[in-house]
Amino acid sequence: MTFESKFNLFDNLPGEIPKEIFQTIVQTPHVRIERIISKGHRSEDGFWYDQDQDEWVLVLKGKARIEFEDKSVELGAGDCINIAAHRKHRVAWTTPDEETIWLAIFY
Amino acid sequence: MTFESKFNLFDNLPGEIPKEIFQTIVQTPHVRIERIISKGHRSEDGFWYDQDQDEWVLVLKGKARIEFEDKSVELGAGDCINIAAHRKHRVAWTTPDEETIWLAIFY
Repeated sequence: MTFESKFNLFDNLPGEIPKEIFQTIVQTPHVRIERIISKGHRSEDGFWYDQDQDEWVLVLKGKARIEFEDKSVELGAGDCINIAAHRKHRVAWTTPDEETIWLAIFY
Repeated sequence: MTFESKFNLFDNLPGEIPKEIFQTIVQTPHVRIERIISKGHRSEDGFWYDQDQDEWVLVLKGKARIEFEDKSVELGAGDCINIAAHRKHRVAWTTPDEETIWLAIFY
């Protein structure tokens, strides 16, 4: 994202979302800010994210459920959660009724 | 913010906001994530932020106007803007009608 160009995170949603959309907003060697758009998507069976960076993730719109190996957490608009590096997790569910817009910060 | 404790950015707003509230959510040597709560607040006359880090800032709720030396930008819910280090800016206005909740990432 260039400096000083205003952008609305709820805008420019594609009409069809056959696959989850990952858009990098800011990237440096130490941090990546991403917008993610889901609509009923979930991680494939048996797939776990196992990341080298910590991740702080916020749901801006919609609803989702993140699954860890020992528990799951429901997230709605405004909910955020901090996930440690190498803490295995997956997206177990996102609502099919509307887009779920996530802001993810990998740091 | 501890790992895996869900938190809602729209919750836990104080009833009175005599001064702008700055809450650090995540802090490392390279990145700081902050929630800022304003209600009609603006930067003092003649004050300019002049920061060592780049800042990506998002308005989650409310309305605000950021002023640069040569222009100003209005922000509503979902609007984000990327501000380079040492680009002088100030908060010229936030709506007095409701809280403005910002998410700021210094990186």
